[in-house]
Amino acid sequence: MAHIELEAGVPGIRSLALFRPETAGPLYALAEVLLRGPSTLSPAERELIAAYVSSRNNCVFCMSSHAAAARCLFGDEAGTVDAVLEDVSHAPISEKLDALLNIAGKVQILGKQVLPVDVEKARAAGADDRAIHDTVLIAATFSMFNRYVDGLATLTPTDPETYAAMGKRLAEHGYNPPKKP
Amino acid sequence: MAHIELEAGVPGIRSLALFRPETAGPLYALAEVLLRGPSTLSPAERELIAAYVSSRNNCVFCMSSHAAAARCLFGDEAGTVDAVLEDVSHAPISEKLDALLNIAGKVQILGKQVLPVDVEKARAAGADDRAIHDTVLIAATFSMFNRYVDGLATLTPTDPETYAAMGKRLAEHGYNPPKKP
Repeated sequence: MAHIELEAGVPGIRSLALFRPETAGPLYALAEVLLRGPSTLSPAERELIAAYVSSRNNCVFCMSSHAAAARCLFGDEAGTVDAVLEDVSHAPISEKLDALLNIAGKVQILGKQVLPVDVEKARAAGADDRAIHDTVLIAATFSMFNRYVDGLATLTPTDPETYAAMGKRLAEHGYNPPKKP
Repeated sequence: MAHIELEAGVPGIRSLALFRPETAGPLYALAEVLLRGPSTLSPAERELIAAYVSSRNNCVFCMSSHAAAARCLFGDEAGTVDAVLEDVSHAPISEKLDALLNIAGKVQILGKQVLPVDVEKARAAGADDRAIHDTVLIAATFSMFNRYVDGLATLTPTDPETYAAMGKRLAEHGYNPPKKP
């Protein structure tokens, strides 16, 4: 049961958006611009970073929904998502994505963990300032969403099909706050 | 030196807002509604929660600027801020604020640390659902800002007067993204 009175049956962040639409506005706008707006990272890569950080924070709702979105966006290469979530050190990914996930994992611990050598490695593998910025901000943003969703003990569906449908909606339509039923 | 090329001499979050105005828009809008908008917590209490979480995350820029804002907003009771940052267990604060800071400290670790007993204690001390929600979201939001600011190694001023001026501006004018010089 959630720690505060939320709309029954509405999962995760969506129940919080209905409880407090004033903060949902900027939160959904942030997710939309950060995960779908112009970037030197693809939406698939950005959703994967979000799922990876959520997995490290053990936030099942965020991890499952963003992994599902990433699988849709990777298309033929959907297996990449599960390989990264299972064991990033053996996942068949580019050096660039590997270096960016390393940075995201350090941000998940705490900001000062990111060292110049981590950034140099990403840059040598082809990441530009924008990609490095967006990686850090995505990792920081999901360190927020994960704490928000779990800190209020929101509803976490357990059915994989629910997340598959969520992922499809996120991949196709992006981030829009829910409207009061 | 920052990990990416930022405007010289501009500190913390402001340098990141100039680098990426698209994400700065929702980030500043979130801070404004969450720390200044309608709430059952005062702006002073909300700034104190922000400073407390930033202190636990060892983010000197966020801790110093929000502590300075909280001192301005607490006015005659500005000493409360330093007492909380020094040792929350001996700070002269209400049972309600003590219970909410306990929740914020747990969110700083990770969302699932917040237990029903923590929320019951806050409720028994007079916190309503809105106060509990806002406390969790402020703690989650600063878990983001702290990682964003430190993860990109932005400029952290060391002069207390710089933070006093920042705190005064935040207390009087709230959160507005900086414009390109």
